[in-house]
Amino acid sequence: MGINARHTLDALLHPRSVAVIGASDDPLRIGGRPIAYMRSQSFAGRILPVNPGRATVQGLTAYASVDALPETPDVAIIAIPAKSSVQVVADLAERGTAVAIVFSAGFAESGPEGEATQRALVAAARRHGMRVLGPNSLGLVNPRNGFYGSFVSSVELGMPSAGRVAIVSQSGAYGGHILATATAAGIGLSACAMTGNESDITLGEVVQMMVNDDDTDVIALYSEGIREAAGLIAALEAARRARKPVVMMKVGRSVVGSAAAQSHTASIAGNDVVIEAVLAELGVVRARSTEQMLDIARLATRRIYPVNNALGVITVSGGAGVIICDAAEDLGLPVPEMPVETQAELNALLPYASPRNPVDVTAQFLNDFSLLSRFTETMVDKGGYPSVLGFFTYTAGMPSVAPRLRDELKRVRERHPDRLFVLSVLASPEQIRGYEEDGFCVFEDPSRAVLAIEAMGRYGRAFAAEAGEAAPVVPVPFLPASTPSEAQAKRLLASAGIASAPEIACTTVDAAVAATRDIGFPVVLKILSPDILHKSEIGGVLLNVSDEDSVRLGFATLVERAGKVVPTARIEGVLVARQLSGGVECILGIHRDPVFGPMAMFGLGGIFVEVMKDVVFHRCPFGPDVAERMIRSIKGAPLLLGARGRPPVDIDALARMLSQLSAFGAAAGARLQSIDLNPVFAMPAGQGAYAADAVIEILPEVTP
Amino acid sequence: MGINARHTLDALLHPRSVAVIGASDDPLRIGGRPIAYMRSQSFAGRILPVNPGRATVQGLTAYASVDALPETPDVAIIAIPAKSSVQVVADLAERGTAVAIVFSAGFAESGPEGEATQRALVAAARRHGMRVLGPNSLGLVNPRNGFYGSFVSSVELGMPSAGRVAIVSQSGAYGGHILATATAAGIGLSACAMTGNESDITLGEVVQMMVNDDDTDVIALYSEGIREAAGLIAALEAARRARKPVVMMKVGRSVVGSAAAQSHTASIAGNDVVIEAVLAELGVVRARSTEQMLDIARLATRRIYPVNNALGVITVSGGAGVIICDAAEDLGLPVPEMPVETQAELNALLPYASPRNPVDVTAQFLNDFSLLSRFTETMVDKGGYPSVLGFFTYTAGMPSVAPRLRDELKRVRERHPDRLFVLSVLASPEQIRGYEEDGFCVFEDPSRAVLAIEAMGRYGRAFAAEAGEAAPVVPVPFLPASTPSEAQAKRLLASAGIASAPEIACTTVDAAVAATRDIGFPVVLKILSPDILHKSEIGGVLLNVSDEDSVRLGFATLVERAGKVVPTARIEGVLVARQLSGGVECILGIHRDPVFGPMAMFGLGGIFVEVMKDVVFHRCPFGPDVAERMIRSIKGAPLLLGARGRPPVDIDALARMLSQLSAFGAAAGARLQSIDLNPVFAMPAGQGAYAADAVIEILPEVTP
Repeated sequence: MGINARHTLDALLHPRSVAVIGASDDPLRIGGRPIAYMRSQSFAGRILPVNPGRATVQGLTAYASVDALPETPDVAIIAIPAKSSVQVVADLAERGTAVAIVFSAGFAESGPEGEATQRALVAAARRHGMRVLGPNSLGLVNPRNGFYGSFVSSVELGMPSAGRVAIVSQSGAYGGHILATATAAGIGLSACAMTGNESDITLGEVVQMMVNDDDTDVIALYSEGIREAAGLIAALEAARRARKPVVMMKVGRSVVGSAAAQSHTASIAGNDVVIEAVLAELGVVRARSTEQMLDIARLATRRIYPVNNALGVITVSGGAGVIICDAAEDLGLPVPEMPVETQAELNALLPYASPRNPVDVTAQFLNDFSLLSRFTETMVDKGGYPSVLGFFTYTAGMPSVAPRLRDELKRVRERHPDRLFVLSVLASPEQIRGYEEDGFCVFEDPSRAVLAIEAMGRYGRAFAAEAGEAAPVVPVPFLPASTPSEAQAKRLLASAGIASAPEIACTTVDAAVAATRDIGFPVVLKILSPDILHKSEIGGVLLNVSDEDSVRLGFATLVERAGKVVPTARIEGVLVARQLSGGVECILGIHRDPVFGPMAMFGLGGIFVEVMKDVVFHRCPFGPDVAERMIRSIKGAPLLLGARGRPPVDIDALARMLSQLSAFGAAAGARLQSIDLNPVFAMPAGQGAYAADAVIEILPEVTP
Repeated sequence: MGINARHTLDALLHPRSVAVIGASDDPLRIGGRPIAYMRSQSFAGRILPVNPGRATVQGLTAYASVDALPETPDVAIIAIPAKSSVQVVADLAERGTAVAIVFSAGFAESGPEGEATQRALVAAARRHGMRVLGPNSLGLVNPRNGFYGSFVSSVELGMPSAGRVAIVSQSGAYGGHILATATAAGIGLSACAMTGNESDITLGEVVQMMVNDDDTDVIALYSEGIREAAGLIAALEAARRARKPVVMMKVGRSVVGSAAAQSHTASIAGNDVVIEAVLAELGVVRARSTEQMLDIARLATRRIYPVNNALGVITVSGGAGVIICDAAEDLGLPVPEMPVETQAELNALLPYASPRNPVDVTAQFLNDFSLLSRFTETMVDKGGYPSVLGFFTYTAGMPSVAPRLRDELKRVRERHPDRLFVLSVLASPEQIRGYEEDGFCVFEDPSRAVLAIEAMGRYGRAFAAEAGEAAPVVPVPFLPASTPSEAQAKRLLASAGIASAPEIACTTVDAAVAATRDIGFPVVLKILSPDILHKSEIGGVLLNVSDEDSVRLGFATLVERAGKVVPTARIEGVLVARQLSGGVECILGIHRDPVFGPMAMFGLGGIFVEVMKDVVFHRCPFGPDVAERMIRSIKGAPLLLGARGRPPVDIDALARMLSQLSAFGAAAGARLQSIDLNPVFAMPAGQGAYAADAVIEILPEVTP
């Protein structure tokens, strides 16, 4: 983003003057709401209503047209029909307005005609360097300065307070829902932006704007479909570098992208698995509900992101301790034991207390308050937990207890400003405010508290992650004009350092017999044709062929079968390959995701991928370290590491192959649709990994 | 439960008179709180404080002792030290008091001495037929009549209102947390009972009490460990018969029962998997958090439990529709499309609306309210969805919209009183109360609404379930004195109709060679010894033995190996068995769960159980229909049903075997520890299923 772009988006958050085109005197109409909101929130900039039919609007002087405006507005709000808006935008752009927020619908979302209008609108703006948010956008709210470039009606239920969470939403209606929910939950906002049709300003740019904004610490992102991946990824990477947590709802998990469903690998994936993988790579925490998103955002504003997260629990109920442990284990958040000698110290204070962690101080603390402070202090000092969760439930709200509890907790908190302190309590809003002011983040439900705490550790790890090993460099593959045969495919892959089982392409029976002398029995025979991709489906593969006669018979059988099943196929002959055995069968693949480009996939062979869906994905390219982490992350990984008395396989070779494949996928360009290495034999340690079959799908070259 | 027991527990919920032993004038002390609570809640029964040191307590006449009481109290609350309580309980029992609620701690939870006191306490009560709730119990609250047999301090934050949800909790502190959370959420309660040490009245009895209570519709159950399974199971079965939904938090998911970890099958299971299976059998919905539990309980009070649940969604935000679909798909709740012709009708009304389901009426309804009613009515009438979720977010709280929206919704609701209507809205407490009064259940978060709606369908299915096929009857097995050899084990199982691969136990080499003439090559040779259970671990199994010489060599090898590895083993010879092939390897097993008794297990062979944990459990015994459902429920089931071009296996035979095994497990008695049939070959359809190995672990007979 250049300096000008940055300036433009600054204007969007902090305009000195705002024109409202289609300004209405009625504070409930689309053209009236922004004015009413800004006035009620004491917006300090100048509001310039434009309405040819009125001298004043909501008590402000109105102007008949853009030309009549006494100054050039930084921002213009467009609340007039789509058709009329193009000329107005052109006028505003010519005068030098930085950004137009276009509320109006009737653009690309409404069909081809609207799409043309939208193109004209953007062209008119861009001609003079003006940017457009929308159209069909609910606009932008900045509670810090009272700028309401929005007609969102959810604020009727309560105006948001200023704070450090930015909401960025592709949906207007749901953005309003998030805004209202956040407001009701008392979450202070730096902005709430709703991107609409993204004709010009993209979701990625708005995220980048919030990354650049010094008053924003946390970004809560709601997305229905990623239109422009590169910009969004760049913005999310910038957020990670700036240590600004992004929590994202990407909805539509159940929808499988049609384009991605074509190749074998992709049919297993579905778009959402890819999105899940990409977000994890980028350190974005994905929320499954609005409640989760706002819980995580709220805790993230404490700005404590433990790199090696672990949870210490102090509780007045053993049961709550168990619930918290259950939730932590579900999420993989460790709840390590207290040092044994410290446990003895605590037991000396209160024999029936449980001092392991969760540290259960029991209801005894109501009789002896010093117990609470000694238990809490000891746990925080000696346990060394980066995150501390106190379960005090309704005791924290009892008038007879709350003030003393608050004092005790505050003292401990002040001595450890680097720790993440969370409370699970039931109390009045005033009491909760008190605990929050003292530096605690308060949740009612202990399970929700654990979910948010675990997310902070994921941010910590993402922010601390060092650059890993470099992805390998492979020569740019020279892709053939169309999908290659198996032998061609393997040659292509060999040039990128991907090894196949030894094999020889044979055009005659005699050549096939001769080939077995080099390769040794048993062999595999496979039909060789660029027109037959899935050979086993037509009976085009013969395994464990173990003598010359069988080779001769097999050759004839394969050619005959192929000719019968696919009469139009060009038959080049038969591939004679070494029959590998003793390894573990894996699948390695690449498929081009319509949003994120080439994605690498790894899984165990056959049923593990197809029935158990035990696979992992990653954007291409990546180094062997990432490849190894992928391999080790699947559920069936013990099979590769020596489960059930098997020898461990050559993980190094397998990881290298996956990494080389990812480099090939990245270098091959947009014509590469998919690669399917199935099976790859991961041989015992030290003996390598070999692709036994390779299918590469390529889009035909477009002749000009 | 007999008539007397029922009468006793009636007294516990509806006492006409309550003695408080250890009554205190201080309303914040344990012996003072119940009196203060009952008086503030206008309890209509007589309160009889007992305190030898005072003439009055909180303004009521106090009595010096149980003997001095002017009448026999129905219920006595014991708030004096453990030691003194035994005599007082004896005195109360002798006078004829029905139930004592014992608050006091210092009993079984504190060690062996306390355990002895607890035994004495129960004996003293039982001598005269008195029952005991507790000790170490926070007691019982009945908001319907203001009976507070409890010192729970959470009510300081607000007294619960009367309603139709019963909270039953094993934990006092966490029970108080649930009580306070439910109260804050406005959930009316029929009772809140906390069972404490369960020295006498068990969790199951309290559940049964709430099943019998006409004012209770829903039971919210919190459990940390099931002490007495039979009574609880009977109560949960009674709840199902009475169509009273039970929603349960069973915490401690991460704890693996030590006793259960002994046998192979059990080491895979862990207690929690068993609990999960048993609760599903009983139609109990398990909640993972307090929030989930109360959401489900709240919706369940509407008493609409669809048998074939399906969700119709009306929304003002397309995004919310997607979120709702995501959540529904995660839970397996169908969101079927509207009839195509109805979609056309709706599109005629509003061209840009999405009429498929979710039905998106868009913000247009704000301009034309008739759209809303027509869309909603059409969806409800024509879609026929048993459950309807309306997402109206903040529009339902906007003063300019809410009254009309409420009218519209109410009209639709009244025409369809049999449907489950749920709203996801943001509104003021008063507005929400209005929607609730009209018969809608209101949630803020749409994802939480979906979770609760899905649970209602699970109740519907459980309540509608017909008795399935009867479990097979097998002769009571005559278990040997100790763990049998493989051949003995298979004979035992054969008597219960469980088939093994054809095999012959051979004590000599020549017998083994002769055996192959009956069985046919190839064969499997296995060492035969009651002292060697896990034969393959010591190299005691030879596969694919294909000629006589190999049989002779193999016999000698096995006997030598076994003698070397387990020098003390009694070697009986070698088992010669047919080498099965062409089937799918499965594992069938039984293990005795310390809580629920014999549990049957099914999974696919080898890695699927050990690495992928793809297994299913069920209490013994059950019929072939249940067995088949179990088999079809595992993730790897496609492998049995013909995935990847394999022939489907003989599911009937496999289900019969599993069912017979369950009958054997149930009939064998408490000495049976585990059975492990691993592998079982499920042969292609029509060809049966055969156990290739069988290990039965038996506790030695205790000689008197």
